[in-house]
Amino acid sequence: MLGNVAETKKVHADSSTFTQGLSKQEVYAQIREQAEGLFFEQRNWVCNLANTASLLWHGLRSLPPPSSSVNWAGFYVLDASKPNQLILGPFQGQVACQTIAFGRGVCGAAAQTGATQLVEDVDKFPGHIACDAASKSEIVVPIVQNGRVVAIIDIDCAELNGFDEEDKTGLEELAQLIAESSDF
Amino acid sequence: MLGNVAETKKVHADSSTFTQGLSKQEVYAQIREQAEGLFFEQRNWVCNLANTASLLWHGLRSLPPPSSSVNWAGFYVLDASKPNQLILGPFQGQVACQTIAFGRGVCGAAAQTGATQLVEDVDKFPGHIACDAASKSEIVVPIVQNGRVVAIIDIDCAELNGFDEEDKTGLEELAQLIAESSDF
Repeated sequence: MLGNVAETKKVHADSSTFTQGLSKQEVYAQIREQAEGLFFEQRNWVCNLANTASLLWHGLRSLPPPSSSVNWAGFYVLDASKPNQLILGPFQGQVACQTIAFGRGVCGAAAQTGATQLVEDVDKFPGHIACDAASKSEIVVPIVQNGRVVAIIDIDCAELNGFDEEDKTGLEELAQLIAESSDF
Repeated sequence: MLGNVAETKKVHADSSTFTQGLSKQEVYAQIREQAEGLFFEQRNWVCNLANTASLLWHGLRSLPPPSSSVNWAGFYVLDASKPNQLILGPFQGQVACQTIAFGRGVCGAAAQTGATQLVEDVDKFPGHIACDAASKSEIVVPIVQNGRVVAIIDIDCAELNGFDEEDKTGLEELAQLIAESSDF
């Protein structure tokens, strides 16, 4: 069948190719739509977060500044080996801190409070953990499953004020999709 | 103590910064050395492979062509939900195929045979899976623990003949370090 032939020829890399000139809302809509397709019949969290990190990285960097200066996009998850600790999950960008205690820095605050942290200037955030001195602003969105934070989305930007309310909305919708679609 | 102050100031991102002008052997030596440091007292495979994918991506792309054209670097691991199937692990690059059956394509061949696959031209490899049409050559190195393939290192290049015997040696040494240092 022709339909099947077309299906076979579709390459996954195209999912993370974003047309220049899209609005931020359109980029988040494409990320969500592609993630939904990639999560179909696949609930493995490592696999799903690895592909989502790629979507976020390529989507945000296709936008005008400051989003084009995103320099880290990925996930921390609950560390099964230690209570109240996050451990590094799939990401795109430079090498990152392996573990983060609940309450420490921007990621730890999101994990402890269950609330999105939108930080315009990380140097002004009490107890900020500098995994990368180049990062100037950050957004961290908790992924909540059965009332419990199971992971966080963490995105850094090399510019101040790298994120806004559109990022918050787009990432919170994505966090909900991940929570519904993946087994942690 | 001064030592502790210095320790605190060290940022993880620097681990994946590679000086221009290093030889390929020197880059693999730095990747191995940094990986050893990152794996110290940390055996979580997701965390360790996520950071190693970052080291490989930044290390290889710091080299002259063809290594600078590496367009995917990451891992597939045994899929606990289905025998003889690989599932996507941490990576850097564009979105990738979620699962690969043992014996299918370059990754599947490495998993099935337990032998490194160095492929000069992926279009000539029987049953090649084109996750990304831009990928022209590939190297896949099995990670063997207790006599069993538990994961594979997979690197794609957008040029033909992207990899050579130095890559094979460097990646096989890295695969052994990962097998010794991580719990799968």
